[in-house]
Amino acid sequence: MERARIGLLGYGTVGSNVYRLLERERSQILEATGVDLEVVGIAELNTSKHGVGAPRELFSTDAGAVIARPDVDIVVELVGGVETAFMLVHTALSSGKSVVTANKQLLANRGGPLFELAKEKGRQIRFEASVAGAVPIIKVMRESMIAADLHTVYGIVNGTTNYILTAMYAGEGDYASTLAQAQRLGYAEADPTDDVSGGDAAAKMAILASIAFKSRVTLADVRYEGIDRITPADVQYAKDFGYVIKLVGAARLVEGRVNVHVSPALVPEGHPLAAISGSYNAVLMQGHSIDEIMLSGPGAGGVQTSSAVISDIVSIVSTKTAGFLQNCSCYRHLDFCPDDELESAFFIRAQVEDRAGVLSQISSVFGEHDVSIESMIQKGHGEQAELVFVTHPTKEHNATAALRAVESLACVRGSTMAIRVL
Amino acid sequence: MERARIGLLGYGTVGSNVYRLLERERSQILEATGVDLEVVGIAELNTSKHGVGAPRELFSTDAGAVIARPDVDIVVELVGGVETAFMLVHTALSSGKSVVTANKQLLANRGGPLFELAKEKGRQIRFEASVAGAVPIIKVMRESMIAADLHTVYGIVNGTTNYILTAMYAGEGDYASTLAQAQRLGYAEADPTDDVSGGDAAAKMAILASIAFKSRVTLADVRYEGIDRITPADVQYAKDFGYVIKLVGAARLVEGRVNVHVSPALVPEGHPLAAISGSYNAVLMQGHSIDEIMLSGPGAGGVQTSSAVISDIVSIVSTKTAGFLQNCSCYRHLDFCPDDELESAFFIRAQVEDRAGVLSQISSVFGEHDVSIESMIQKGHGEQAELVFVTHPTKEHNATAALRAVESLACVRGSTMAIRVL
Repeated sequence: MERARIGLLGYGTVGSNVYRLLERERSQILEATGVDLEVVGIAELNTSKHGVGAPRELFSTDAGAVIARPDVDIVVELVGGVETAFMLVHTALSSGKSVVTANKQLLANRGGPLFELAKEKGRQIRFEASVAGAVPIIKVMRESMIAADLHTVYGIVNGTTNYILTAMYAGEGDYASTLAQAQRLGYAEADPTDDVSGGDAAAKMAILASIAFKSRVTLADVRYEGIDRITPADVQYAKDFGYVIKLVGAARLVEGRVNVHVSPALVPEGHPLAAISGSYNAVLMQGHSIDEIMLSGPGAGGVQTSSAVISDIVSIVSTKTAGFLQNCSCYRHLDFCPDDELESAFFIRAQVEDRAGVLSQISSVFGEHDVSIESMIQKGHGEQAELVFVTHPTKEHNATAALRAVESLACVRGSTMAIRVL
Repeated sequence: MERARIGLLGYGTVGSNVYRLLERERSQILEATGVDLEVVGIAELNTSKHGVGAPRELFSTDAGAVIARPDVDIVVELVGGVETAFMLVHTALSSGKSVVTANKQLLANRGGPLFELAKEKGRQIRFEASVAGAVPIIKVMRESMIAADLHTVYGIVNGTTNYILTAMYAGEGDYASTLAQAQRLGYAEADPTDDVSGGDAAAKMAILASIAFKSRVTLADVRYEGIDRITPADVQYAKDFGYVIKLVGAARLVEGRVNVHVSPALVPEGHPLAAISGSYNAVLMQGHSIDEIMLSGPGAGGVQTSSAVISDIVSIVSTKTAGFLQNCSCYRHLDFCPDDELESAFFIRAQVEDRAGVLSQISSVFGEHDVSIESMIQKGHGEQAELVFVTHPTKEHNATAALRAVESLACVRGSTMAIRVL
């Protein structure tokens, strides 16, 4: 029997669920794996939570003291934020403890030095819960895809925006009202900025890209766009063309360089991502040795996230040598490829004057920029006239230049809307 | 650096791909994981393969000699069959070597004693490639789902039958002609019996059930049915009702007992399994702590299977303690629940006389057996008249009894067709 004695930092939704789930599953986990898991200390600043669901004597307000306990082998960091968490994880690793964290912002912003420290100290950082909740995408990429020669990882990694887009697709309202509905039902935070801006998804994609390509990608390397500009009209037009709008994160190797971005995208109706609804997440991996593998499931939730935290603890206890797999081994440095050089089809919506010749003017501008149109719908008339196109794939810098030129035409009112097609 | 020296038993499609992929990825795997993988001996009876793609001096016709080499740490069994493979794996474990195998029939029929021996010897058996090719369902279930409290595992685990059913759904022919097409394209064996009978899927479900529920399930415990009785008419009627016919394997905990079966099933069009096409596989796991997680990807293929074999080798070298996770730890014994006691809706097709009163006669027989009808289509007339029903969920023994009674009616010609609804 191996024993893992755990110091829990943070006793919010996830922390309290980790404690409860561990208590419930402890004997089964011991039987199945030979590992006995025990929480020996809990740090929580909010003293009103002390003693709730766990014995009062386990609690302390001093995270440093919990980390320093000689009987703590593994520190579970669930306090959130970047700076405080960095300090706590740094202290834990420096004191020779391994760490489990669900903190994607910590890893995406300052993961590099922590992984280096872990390697130096011969300790592990595991972080399954940081991306896609209970879906074991981190372990699968780090361990099972070791010979897969991955070149592309993409998917839906933010549950809040997927909930909103699913509701908009079902015709339940516009961005603002479906967001409000998501907030009422607990699928969106009171301050949803990080989710709806794409920032949360970008942090997760930085983590996934670092693992897939073995080259460090930080949040600053990821271009992202959110879903707040998506209107019910965009959703409906996309549907007319046979697409579903999703917030898609994508990490690709492009001729030896790395591109990672997050943006709304039109996903064809038959594509596996089109079927991912509500707050579910899904990640697809493509590699020369595996074709395409998809993992999907609940992207968040207290119990689901706890299940991932517990599997990380068992994995730490079961892994042989420090230096092995356990760190996010970025042994090489690849350059970045700007979005401009990517090729993609685009969905474009423009408000136009309702008169003869407008379509030919616009399509000739597209043609001058090497952008050819695959399909087109004209809707409304008079002040409301709109042209909606889907282009053939083109270099993004061509599409951008064509859009600027189209917007400068006298027959086009205001700015256009452009969304990538997956 | 850790070194794994590998003895390869069998140099067919998978064996030669394992060798080639290892050579190609060796330095990257070493950089990423600190594990150096080297094939030091290959056993292959067919001497015409000796020296093809690997140095001639590695080859031998004597598997026992390769296992016995003192420099071999890990034996990769790819010879297939049950008895010979059992002997080879038994010898390897007895000599203190760990084993990687892709042999589902070996594990489903005689896995128990091998897992016991591995435990006794402190060695590992890993078998990712035995179920769903490159899709890492075994590692995910054994390691990531450790706190998930799984109660249901189900999915499409045979690529050949899914290829045939996908082609039938697309209207490309009947069972015999789409099977012939699958054989021409290499998606079905010359002797497809094990695939189309459901036997292959049943062996895989026995393996998955043993891991999910920690209680040994062997092939003999799994009731299975194949797809050879499915007609284009069934596929079309199912489509009319909004369903896709798939060969579904399901393992469930039913009030503390285990039920595992494989049969054709009507899957609703919006269900994730409905979108799994061609030779792809998909497995869904449901547990109290995770809701539902799905993994999907290519179910077979030389390169894909090799990728799984190689990840198993790295996992063996990286795992700390024998006894840990690495064996299929069946620490308890659960009873089996017969299919009869399950509840399920059914699709039922019956050829009937084309005259007044037939429908009321049949529905009254159903009613007498507590089977109520949800929807019904009548097609054709005269000699060709057919009634097609979908029932509400009912105990399977009720459905079976109702069917026997219906078949004995004078107005019903021949036997009826019944297919579970997922």
